[in-house]
Formats: sequence, structure tokens, C-alpha cells
Amino acid sequence: MPEVWSSPVRFVECDQQGVVFNAHYLTWADEASNHWWASHGLPWDVVAARVNPVVKASTLEWTSSARWGDTVAVDAETERVGRTSVTVRYTIRVGERECCVVRNTYVATDGGRAIPWPDDIRDALTG
Amino acid sequence: MPEVWSSPVRFVECDQQGVVFNAHYLTWADEASNHWWASHGLPWDVVAARVNPVVKASTLEWTSSARWGDTVAVDAETERVGRTSVTVRYTIRVGERECCVVRNTYVATDGGRAIPWPDDIRDALTG
Amino acid sequence: MPEVWSSPVRFVECDQQGVVFNAHYLTWADEASNHWWASHGLPWDVVAARVNPVVKASTLEWTSSARWGDTVAVDAETERVGRTSVTVRYTIRVGERECCVVRNTYVATDGGRAIPWPDDIRDALTG
Amino acid sequence: MPEVWSSPVRFVECDQQGVVFNAHYLTWADEASNHWWASHGLPWDVVAARVNPVVKASTLEWTSSARWGDTVAVDAETERVGRTSVTVRYTIRVGERECCVVRNTYVATDGGRAIPWPDDIRDALTG
Repeated sequence: MPEVWSSPVRFVECDQQGVVFNAHYLTWADEASNHWWASHGLPWDVVAARVNPVVKASTLEWTSSARWGDTVAVDAETERVGRTSVTVRYTIRVGERECCVVRNTYVATDGGRAIPWPDDIRDALTG
Repeated sequence: MPEVWSSPVRFVECDQQGVVFNAHYLTWADEASNHWWASHGLPWDVVAARVNPVVKASTLEWTSSARWGDTVAVDAETERVGRTSVTVRYTIRVGERECCVVRNTYVATDGGRAIPWPDDIRDALTG
Repeated sequence: MPEVWSSPVRFVECDQQGVVFNAHYLTWADEASNHWWASHGLPWDVVAARVNPVVKASTLEWTSSARWGDTVAVDAETERVGRTSVTVRYTIRVGERECCVVRNTYVATDGGRAIPWPDDIRDALTG
Repeated sequence: MPEVWSSPVRFVECDQQGVVFNAHYLTWADEASNHWWASHGLPWDVVAARVNPVVKASTLEWTSSARWGDTVAVDAETERVGRTSVTVRYTIRVGERECCVVRNTYVATDGGRAIPWPDDIRDALTG
């Protein structure tokens, strides 16, 4: 499960409870997703031009909080490749401590409708 | 299922695909949550001082996109009250069109550990 | 100096010092700007399609902080109409208390270069 | 004029015009400010505990836009140290191309009022 993205927590990301506000974990997963696509030989721009993947569903489970001064790192693992979708699990941690697991399901679309992955993209995702 | 929060979509919330970036749906659910607590006679400040609810898990399912020029409205419904947690379903829509369903599970905590809801808060949540 | 925009402060906008983070005042001024354009009979979409106004300069001066629980309101006043630019002063306040004055200078552009306002737009801005 | 902070532009920071939304430049200057304080031997936490610096004024001047795919870098230079304030100039660029100059004036405060810099902090800022 390779690390695909990392960043120091920004001051603006912390709320008045002194921890990172929950929505920012989705932003971090999104940044990580670009690197996850690229790690499969599928640069986002190229994929987007062909099958316009959209986020259909997300789940987030927190086990601890990230704070200002922490550096978060995100590991990405392909969890399931379906006919028209792919689910990626992002594990966000501070050092060895896990903070949040985000699962995003992306669906290939054309004109707003789900379409099957082209063979070469599917091969790249499962390879 | 009462509407608890509404706002015009902000320009800053839309990404270069011309739709609201996914993380902002969690921000909207968070704004709605304050009104949901208040609608149960539990102002957030009072609840937070007693049982410090933290978001333990979130799920989001999108069916359509919100865009600049739209006004989003959020309905909130209590889905499940557990011994130490409560799950709220937020339905985010533009007019009659549903965009996203967010489910947040809040856990009562003390010193970072889950604690049972006090009876009066539990009664207010289930009443 | 008419009020053109108003919103409750969002929890996500407050940092761990318990006040609104400075960058969000620019976001509020941006939301207000849409209404300021419209108040001159110049809907943003129409203007943008003709002269693509870009923010060339901003200044912000704070006199007090907005906090969670506050509702901010923004007044907008046209301060100066130049050959290719217009400067708008946004006064952001909570009730009668002033928080911040934002001045934005917008420049009409075509292909990245400043261009004079068309006569009808200039008339609308100065009228 | 040393570089104090750098980051790839995030997708969430780009608006539907395909460029970074203006408010995010203030966020970047804020991240840079922490490193600027530290570069003077004044860790933010230590300074904040003693004189609670607040941003009193900001100016931003744009000469070009940052976009997704760019990496922005921020140089910081102390421009003026006053009795109770300090002005820092942040130059934000993509490679050699300048995008924006941000000037922030921080005022030392106690109980909401401006106070003179302690001698050692003043020495560190001017040294």
C-alpha cells in the first residue's frame, strides 16, 4: 500500500476545537487520487478526457485527529474494480498513527451515464 | 424530514469541472448539524460542553451535482440512536432534485473515549 | 451603501484562535461582488462573457473579528471607475460593528490584456 | 529573499475559471508566515503566547494566475518593523514567473490592544 501524497497540516484546516475539520480529509483523498491514477499509468487528464470519472460514493471512518504541526501521509490501495467503477481505499495517518480511512468509488461516465471501463484502462487498474 | 439549513452555492465551492467539489457537502452537513441539534432542544454549545460529540464516520452518496447559481437545501433526519452514538441522515437537494445523501455518526466522548448519552440527551434525541 | 450579501459565519471558517480565518473575508467579498454587479444591471455571466473582469488587486483592513454565531453582512460601494478598471469597497460587519474593509480592483481583460470598458458597461458602472 | 514555503496547487483551490481562487493566496501567505517567524528564531507558538500577533492589514497584487499542475513557492521578506507592528512581503511565484505579492501587517496585541514588541522579539525581527 504505497504512500501517494503527503502534506503538513495547514492552519486554515484546523477548527476551533483544535483539530482538522472533517471535510478536509476528502480534499486530501482527492489530492491522493491524482497520484493513485498516475501510479497506474493513467494520468488524470488523459483518463478524464476519455471516461470522465466522477465520485459516486465516499465513506470516512476516523480513529484519531490530525492537528496543526502534524504532517499527514496518504496511502492508496485499489479495493475493487467493477464493470463501470473502481473503489480506492485511502489511509490517512500521522507517522504510524492512523487518523482516517476514506473509500471513494469512482464511476466512468459519458454524458452523465455510467459506462464500462475501456479494456486498456481496466487492465491498467487491475494490473 | 424538516429542512434545517439552506444556502446559495458559493463560487469558491465550484471546481474547474463546473460543479461543487465533493468535500463541501460535508461542510454543508456540518452546518445543518447545528440546526439539527437545536431542533431537538440541544444547542450545540450545551451538548458539546457535556458530552463532546465527535464525528466517527461519514458516508456520502451522490446522485447529481450542485452548481453555481443553485441554492442547496438540507433536510435532516435522525436515523439511529445508539447507546453512545447517533446517526443523522442529511439529504442535500436543489429544489426537488436530490444531489447527495450524507450520513454522519456522532459519538459522545469524554477524554477521547465513547460514553453513554446522559438520559436527558437520549430522551431529547429519541423524543 | 447598500447591503448586498449576508451569511451566518460557518464553523469551518473559524480557526483554532476562535475567529474567522483571514482568507475567508476575500471569499465573502467575492460573493458580494456578484450582487454588486447585478445591482448595476450587469449580471456576472453577461459581463464575464464580454470583458472577463479579473481581480488585479485587493486590500483588507481589519478592525474586529467575526466569530461563529455571528452573521456577517456586506455593503458594497463603487469607489472609482477607471478606463479599464473599477474599484469596489466592501464593508463587512456584524450588526453595527465593522469587522473588515475589503477593496477589490477589477480589470476588464481580453486575452489576458487590459481593455477599456465598453461604453454601456461604463455607463452602468458610473450611473 | 528566501523561499519559506512551497506546495503543489490543489485541485480544490482552482475555480471554474480554471485558476486559483483569489482567497487561497492569503492562505498560502499564512502558511509562509509560520516559516518566516521561525526563520527569525521566533516559533509561532512562542510568539503567540507572548504578544498574540494579529493580521491588521493585507494587500494583494496579482500579475499572473497559478493553475492546477503548478507548484507555487513563497519568498518572505521583512519590509518594515514598527513599534507595535511588522510588515512582511510574500512573493508567490510558479518557477520564475511571479503570480502575486502579498503584504501582511501583523500587530502585537494584548487583550485586543496594540502593544510594543518586547526588545528581544524586536531584535530578532530586525536582526
